[in-house]
Amino acid sequence: MITTIELMAVISGAVFGVLAARRKGLDLVGVVSVAMMTAFGGGSLRDLLLDRHPLFWIEHSRYPVIVFSVACGLSMLPRIPRTAVRLLDLADALGLGLFSIVGTQLALDQGVAPFVAVLLGVITGSFGGVIADIVCNEVPGLFRPDTPLYATCAFTGGWILIALLHLSVSASLAFAVATVSVVLMRLVALKFRIVLRSTRTGQE
Amino acid sequence: MITTIELMAVISGAVFGVLAARRKGLDLVGVVSVAMMTAFGGGSLRDLLLDRHPLFWIEHSRYPVIVFSVACGLSMLPRIPRTAVRLLDLADALGLGLFSIVGTQLALDQGVAPFVAVLLGVITGSFGGVIADIVCNEVPGLFRPDTPLYATCAFTGGWILIALLHLSVSASLAFAVATVSVVLMRLVALKFRIVLRSTRTGQE
Amino acid sequence: MITTIELMAVISGAVFGVLAARRKGLDLVGVVSVAMMTAFGGGSLRDLLLDRHPLFWIEHSRYPVIVFSVACGLSMLPRIPRTAVRLLDLADALGLGLFSIVGTQLALDQGVAPFVAVLLGVITGSFGGVIADIVCNEVPGLFRPDTPLYATCAFTGGWILIALLHLSVSASLAFAVATVSVVLMRLVALKFRIVLRSTRTGQE
Repeated sequence: MITTIELMAVISGAVFGVLAARRKGLDLVGVVSVAMMTAFGGGSLRDLLLDRHPLFWIEHSRYPVIVFSVACGLSMLPRIPRTAVRLLDLADALGLGLFSIVGTQLALDQGVAPFVAVLLGVITGSFGGVIADIVCNEVPGLFRPDTPLYATCAFTGGWILIALLHLSVSASLAFAVATVSVVLMRLVALKFRIVLRSTRTGQE
Repeated sequence: MITTIELMAVISGAVFGVLAARRKGLDLVGVVSVAMMTAFGGGSLRDLLLDRHPLFWIEHSRYPVIVFSVACGLSMLPRIPRTAVRLLDLADALGLGLFSIVGTQLALDQGVAPFVAVLLGVITGSFGGVIADIVCNEVPGLFRPDTPLYATCAFTGGWILIALLHLSVSASLAFAVATVSVVLMRLVALKFRIVLRSTRTGQE
Repeated sequence: MITTIELMAVISGAVFGVLAARRKGLDLVGVVSVAMMTAFGGGSLRDLLLDRHPLFWIEHSRYPVIVFSVACGLSMLPRIPRTAVRLLDLADALGLGLFSIVGTQLALDQGVAPFVAVLLGVITGSFGGVIADIVCNEVPGLFRPDTPLYATCAFTGGWILIALLHLSVSASLAFAVATVSVVLMRLVALKFRIVLRSTRTGQE
């Protein structure tokens, strides 16, 4: 089941990348590249920072094949249906939950301190989209004040995982609860457009 | 001979970086930095992703010295002659061919799956320019629909290498044929301005 | 004492990141992320390029906690006082000196050639700010012709270190002299707005 969610997460990353690249009018090379960066960027950065080799998409080579096919397929479509975009929000929320909690767990397994492990979870879950925005020459959407909570959900979920592990909850239960929490927080934030607006802008 | 081509490729990367930096009006630090990123970016990313250490430019320290000298020298010129820019297209095509096929070969040697090896070849051959454009705050030229085929040549060449190896052609012949194919494809694409325009732009 | 300077350097990196993020109107996630990238970006890139693991901020987990707290705290302030920004210039110059000379020293310890070691020192000292500018969708300030000498100070300081070590000066004295030189050069460049304007702009 985790494999299924992981696959959905990779695909949803790819589709978001395709959407971003199409908005910018990139060609097929751009669409495929941005799709790959969105799908694999966060996990790759985590693996590099933690010195985990081979990287997950180098080891599981079916992932790049899938992302490539999805990107090429979507490039053929004259337009991507709005319903598909809606469905994506769900797939993406699942992906955020899974990737961020897996990232935190992997870091904890390597003996990394809890705060840093949570950060690495956030990076895993959200950095792909940041890279895509940078490549498309945009300020990352994740950092803009009108974006519903995203990294914040992964951050909170990481602490939920750590709290449950401290309370000696079984590893698999803690993992499941934390992941589901991230997914729910993200969906609620999307539904009610909950944003984080705590900085005063335009000043130094 | 490979060393000579490699040197030409590093230098052409450096010169392209200098041109990009000058167009943006950067100072000498910017020119040198962008030249280094263009020349070493793709190979460094490949080495990091494949966990190959020391990185090629850290091991062969004459490369950074050369790039530094080229960048400083070109910064002195009031303008870079158009003929030099034309010559660069040839040097750059040679570099694309060599770097991408070497990248694919190195990945295959590490037991990476063919599709991923081809991707790593493309990254090696073309990512330097992408990094330079990102640093110069441009959408990467490589991804724009009016750019003649570039990554596509590296991609096709990688598959030619793999096909030839499968047909039990000798390693050095396969290497030479694949490299020359990339170079020729790139030069033909440049000459006839062959582009890849398969995505519908401006829509979601 | 080095620990104290290192701490100041990390904090000044964080504060510069916060200032950059606020100028762009980012939300709290953006402010924290850009602060982290500015504070840890240069050192992380050095560690990745030299294959040094665990990364310094993964090992010393108090640093991320401090940067996180500083970024959150500063986000609460309606505006950041000008005097604080002035003080920052001093802290940042100290940080540039320390980080760049430490970076060069670490590279030399790994047997890297002098020129490359100096480059790695420059990367360590200055790349955090470059990453912050890229994420904020700006041409890196470090590369713009109106920026007082920054990378140049680190570059010169690296060569001072190497020259002193060649003259068989004790390692700790060489380290101290090189670091102080970088700090002084940077402060003088800031005070008299010394810039590097050696490239002709707007031409190819």
